[in-house]
Amino acid sequence: MGTQRILSGMRPTGKLHLGHFTGALESWVEQQNQLDETGARVYETCFLIADYHNLTTSLDTSEIYANTLDMLLDWLAAGVDPEKSPLFRQSQVKEHAELFLIFSMLITSSRLERNPTLKEQIRDLNMESLVYGHLGYPVLQAADILLYKGNVVPVGEDQIPHVEITREVARKFNNHFPHPLLGEVFAEPEPKITKFSRLVGLDGKAKMSKSLGNTILLSDGPEEVLKKMRTAVTDTQKIRKNDPGHPEVCTVFSYHKKFTPEEQLCSIESDCRAGSLGCVDCKKLCAANIAQELAPLIEKRRYYEAHMELVKEILLDGEARAKVIAGQTMQEVRAAMRLGETTCSNHL
Amino acid sequence: MGTQRILSGMRPTGKLHLGHFTGALESWVEQQNQLDETGARVYETCFLIADYHNLTTSLDTSEIYANTLDMLLDWLAAGVDPEKSPLFRQSQVKEHAELFLIFSMLITSSRLERNPTLKEQIRDLNMESLVYGHLGYPVLQAADILLYKGNVVPVGEDQIPHVEITREVARKFNNHFPHPLLGEVFAEPEPKITKFSRLVGLDGKAKMSKSLGNTILLSDGPEEVLKKMRTAVTDTQKIRKNDPGHPEVCTVFSYHKKFTPEEQLCSIESDCRAGSLGCVDCKKLCAANIAQELAPLIEKRRYYEAHMELVKEILLDGEARAKVIAGQTMQEVRAAMRLGETTCSNHL
Ligand code: SF4
Ligand code: SF4
Repeated sequence: MGTQRILSGMRPTGKLHLGHFTGALESWVEQQNQLDETGARVYETCFLIADYHNLTTSLDTSEIYANTLDMLLDWLAAGVDPEKSPLFRQSQVKEHAELFLIFSMLITSSRLERNPTLKEQIRDLNMESLVYGHLGYPVLQAADILLYKGNVVPVGEDQIPHVEITREVARKFNNHFPHPLLGEVFAEPEPKITKFSRLVGLDGKAKMSKSLGNTILLSDGPEEVLKKMRTAVTDTQKIRKNDPGHPEVCTVFSYHKKFTPEEQLCSIESDCRAGSLGCVDCKKLCAANIAQELAPLIEKRRYYEAHMELVKEILLDGEARAKVIAGQTMQEVRAAMRLGETTCSNHL
Repeated sequence: MGTQRILSGMRPTGKLHLGHFTGALESWVEQQNQLDETGARVYETCFLIADYHNLTTSLDTSEIYANTLDMLLDWLAAGVDPEKSPLFRQSQVKEHAELFLIFSMLITSSRLERNPTLKEQIRDLNMESLVYGHLGYPVLQAADILLYKGNVVPVGEDQIPHVEITREVARKFNNHFPHPLLGEVFAEPEPKITKFSRLVGLDGKAKMSKSLGNTILLSDGPEEVLKKMRTAVTDTQKIRKNDPGHPEVCTVFSYHKKFTPEEQLCSIESDCRAGSLGCVDCKKLCAANIAQELAPLIEKRRYYEAHMELVKEILLDGEARAKVIAGQTMQEVRAAMRLGETTCSNHL
């Protein structure tokens, strides 16, 4: 079996919250650090700051670099290791755009309109106002992945159809443009079903989201976590401390499930149901456990914040390494497509 | 008034025919050579080999370099001067793809679907099979033009709506991304109504086209021109030499109007109507006039064919010059968009 390479990315939206951690970062770090029985890494990991993708939904770029650095600090704090995983901005590797343009010739508009994730995203908008580049974001995503020959795509159960577009584009490219030496330039990446835990928002909404203001940030200290936790929605039927509660409908309990050790979890559940645990105390426990989880991140983050020049260098270094890989792939793409030739048997 | 720059292009489809000459090349050379009263050039001209655009309708790239060189020979033969006008392949200047990706965020899909030229092109296909990159070709065209700060776009009367997309994209970019020093990065290009003569095909079909096999090539010698002219459709009512003819419905006469001197034209018209000129002789005259028009092109072409290394260098030189202009524009684009910053007031 050849190298398994994973390309994952996030849009540079600034400081990350707990939802980013459980929904992505945690898995990234795990994939990055996973070793096989010989002690070798199972995956090569590349992490992308998807600034072009950001444009599909917002043209406000005024804070983009500040947001990039804030996000990068959180990545590093969470254990992303820039030695192991190049970290880079999409816009700084021109080859993303080149491969996007080429791939845009390999898929129909109607295929993209049938993309279920897109349909979900534009539910609030209407088809009329759909931006052309937004329609094409799975094409850009295919370019992101295949540019680095990503052959494993960690996805949640519901996102498998998504990987299918990347596979289709890879297949179509290989069919139309066989490489003179390699045969196929791209491997069709395999979806790898990964359990991402979604976190509900403090307000009980389906997910944490910056725009809803219902998040706990990865950079929040213990006091901030506690302050925010106090605002969390609990079982609305548990009004007084001694009312029996229903953990299964409680936001705070959903956090407990993620951040509280198993033994403690059992007693919280039964004490809540019995009415012997009040929400105020329960929240304190939960906040403390989250703060404990975040403590090493905050410490690591503090180090990098005090060395911003290093963070900036990490980015430039990651971009330089990404360019090398991307450049190699594009050389193969060009050879397969016969673009940019300089010798011609018809014209000697 | 600042510099007026024109970006024109063609897809690399191989040897060009008379339709390309009257429909484009003739004007290109005129624009390239036009001088104002001070003896300065009125236009800076850049000529693009649109190999990416080619992919919107065909993924067969096996002959692309041979076709590029064949076309280039015809450009040079027709008087395109590589010193005055950089000649270059779209695929060799990565910035086309970058600006395409950025512009793809500035226009809706439905706006592109309303593009009348596209509607015409897909009349034979159906909307279902419309390729995503084909839908976006006016976006790529906008990138082609604006990358070189083209501010004049020569178009036929019917193509004015086409320039509108480029203008819209430029406006939208300027609005969203003001440049800290320049203010607006792009000028909205002005359409310049230009009379392009269309040539009907030898078979009387609306236009010459390689795929219809109804063309006279710019590289056809006198004998080849005559041979092809013999196959041309004339007035079907003029069967015998002395039958009176109707030049207004005759393919050959439409060529006369373009290639035959005025004085000769009058007598041909009246002699045809009078039945004193037969089609065989009329075609000979026409072929001779076309061959005469082509003679200097053939001579020039022969020179370049004997110096293919020079032709290849011309291309590489044009690409190097195009990259400089494109690189400057993209630097402005990036500064305006704040992509790829390396300093940040939030994080010193
Ligand atoms: S005691 Fe804890 S789990 Fe029970 S409702 Fe209150 S916050 Fe939720
Ligand atoms: S004489 Fe000439 S113009 Fe008249 S029908 Fe014949 S080819 Fe056409």
